[in-house]
Amino acid sequence: MNDSALPPPRGFSPQEFHSRTARAQDIMCNHRLDALVLTAPPNIRYFSGFDTQFWESPTRPWFLVIPADGSPIAVIPEIGAPEMANTWIDRIHTWPSPRPADDGTSLLARALEGLPRRFGRIGFELGREHSLRMPVTQFLELREELAGILLVNGSPCIWEIRMVKTEAEIAHIRHVCRLASEAYARVPGLVQLGDTERDAARKLRIELAERGCDSTPFLPAIAGQGGVRQIVCGPHDRKLEPGDVLFFDTGSTYDGYYCDFDRNYAVGTVSDEALRAHEAMWQATEAGMRAAVVGATTDHVFAVMAKFIEETGSVGNNVGRLGHGLGMQLTEPPSNMPGDGTVLQSGMVLTIEPGIEYAPGKMIVHEENIVIRPDGPELLTIRAPRMLPEIAG
Amino acid sequence: MNDSALPPPRGFSPQEFHSRTARAQDIMCNHRLDALVLTAPPNIRYFSGFDTQFWESPTRPWFLVIPADGSPIAVIPEIGAPEMANTWIDRIHTWPSPRPADDGTSLLARALEGLPRRFGRIGFELGREHSLRMPVTQFLELREELAGILLVNGSPCIWEIRMVKTEAEIAHIRHVCRLASEAYARVPGLVQLGDTERDAARKLRIELAERGCDSTPFLPAIAGQGGVRQIVCGPHDRKLEPGDVLFFDTGSTYDGYYCDFDRNYAVGTVSDEALRAHEAMWQATEAGMRAAVVGATTDHVFAVMAKFIEETGSVGNNVGRLGHGLGMQLTEPPSNMPGDGTVLQSGMVLTIEPGIEYAPGKMIVHEENIVIRPDGPELLTIRAPRMLPEIAG
Repeated sequence: MNDSALPPPRGFSPQEFHSRTARAQDIMCNHRLDALVLTAPPNIRYFSGFDTQFWESPTRPWFLVIPADGSPIAVIPEIGAPEMANTWIDRIHTWPSPRPADDGTSLLARALEGLPRRFGRIGFELGREHSLRMPVTQFLELREELAGILLVNGSPCIWEIRMVKTEAEIAHIRHVCRLASEAYARVPGLVQLGDTERDAARKLRIELAERGCDSTPFLPAIAGQGGVRQIVCGPHDRKLEPGDVLFFDTGSTYDGYYCDFDRNYAVGTVSDEALRAHEAMWQATEAGMRAAVVGATTDHVFAVMAKFIEETGSVGNNVGRLGHGLGMQLTEPPSNMPGDGTVLQSGMVLTIEPGIEYAPGKMIVHEENIVIRPDGPELLTIRAPRMLPEIAG
Repeated sequence: MNDSALPPPRGFSPQEFHSRTARAQDIMCNHRLDALVLTAPPNIRYFSGFDTQFWESPTRPWFLVIPADGSPIAVIPEIGAPEMANTWIDRIHTWPSPRPADDGTSLLARALEGLPRRFGRIGFELGREHSLRMPVTQFLELREELAGILLVNGSPCIWEIRMVKTEAEIAHIRHVCRLASEAYARVPGLVQLGDTERDAARKLRIELAERGCDSTPFLPAIAGQGGVRQIVCGPHDRKLEPGDVLFFDTGSTYDGYYCDFDRNYAVGTVSDEALRAHEAMWQATEAGMRAAVVGATTDHVFAVMAKFIEETGSVGNNVGRLGHGLGMQLTEPPSNMPGDGTVLQSGMVLTIEPGIEYAPGKMIVHEENIVIRPDGPELLTIRAPRMLPEIAG
């Protein structure tokens, strides 16, 4: 095992959280916000280090307030207090939840009213790629209660903050990419002819857990003759047959950070058309990665890959983009697509994901994860083999 | 293996979806709704049977419209069309997503405008225990665009629909409860002194996958001398020591349905006080289950268990309730707590979850899953042993 294969330490230093907060406060000032109110698990975790699988339960809302100056303020259900006290957060307000008549609303309102007002604007997760993790009725009540303050869309500000990763975040993503790469490499020895898609998914799920992934929220396994019909639903009970392409994708996590990349396998011998499409997408990935340099746009990264797809001959595309941001969520802004217009900066982590439907119902999709560096992209995954690996047919 | 251990068939018949929809439409009429618009994965899946792990990506909103009459209408990103066509849903409208300028808003507006108007009210997931899975800004735009229609809180209607389970749903929950019960029974052979909480969680995660659970979104593993400090955060890197109580909880899934119950283990010999609290909570569970009969309230179920907790002597409680509904989510309404006021009906699935902090930082929490039946509760889990099982210390 070389050094880079050692898991990075779990969690982040107080210095890291201080510096994340200070940088966020600069960006908030540009967005003319007196505070950000966060409700979504990845956003709360990003600033506090607090984690709980209990967020799976939708009963209780949780809030973290990032003021324009000073340290964050947690406004949370009592059940979370013992653990929040172990983080760097020292301003913690709790209420006995569930309390349907007032599940944190008045406590949050008082915390927000106590903040200095410069712009009279507070940002909430109201925009794209965000779901507000509190009832909308509760948000609307809060808006009434805070009549003198504008509650505005803080999503563009939040994504500007989170889109560029720190070195410690990148180390987390690199680690989980390595774990998944090594698990994928084991697939030809694990999965065999006659397994169902569901069997294949279960075997990979166990392999990922054994290698040290904390969880695997995303693991489609889909097979089809010479390619797959779609890439987001499954596994189903379909059995692997000679001539199939078996497509795996996984978003697995380590300490709150995701990988998101796929791999393809030939079951026995696949058609020459499938191999040709596979080679084209392998080349498109190479080109997409080369194009992902500081100063380039996500539109450009898309265009470079789209050229390969067009030249190979595509009959359709229902995905709509060729990669996206990645970090504490399976997908994050930006999107590699026309009109996105994001200018790549050092520290952004992206998926490079060209796909083609080379014949009706036959898709081949590749995906790698990279981080943008001043001197070109750094590959976080172990590069997919150019020759389609074979599951003995 | 007896018959009840066979997995129920995956998915549900078209008849089941017809009858869910017809029943929902009756309830919607009582709530004076011309339609429900669903965005959250469990709600969409409940009426359509459509599933995708791709919902992990927050980029694209999805909509399912339940009109007052007739079959549901899917308004979804193109990427989901091939799979939605395999469900019983035959009215499918798609748009090329992501399309930031109009990510389904106008398409959804046209679908809603085309519906007959009787009450002029359409329900959205705006209330308790719901997060709207679309940007709030998009919802507010839609509300402007549909100026002649009131978009109201549909959550009470949705929970009234989903709170009572069908026999096919109960069979799913029973199956995953059995898988997790059997996995828990293996813990004393899997976990050993010196393992960390994280090791213990990983071993149980793998055991659950091997036994046939599809996913394990929730798996705290927490240890503490004679009891645990809290029950929702972890695993951490703490090593198991003699005298520890090891607490596991899991929400694992089979075909979209959750179990949610915990188990406790003694590491070597634990204190008499811990054993006494354990026995009291075992008895409280018995009493809570006996009290969960048709016509009783959730307040009553709480009160019956609370009596045991008080008599044993509790120094605090940060959980706030003693069980809750369960089904396509880890937690659902109702809550076993004062003021909830839900009258139990046949077919409701509940957790019975008494817990006590018998000394500062020492909690013991028990949990079983039951379904309310006309002749008393049916236990879905394999009952926790009365004697605390031991991990050799």
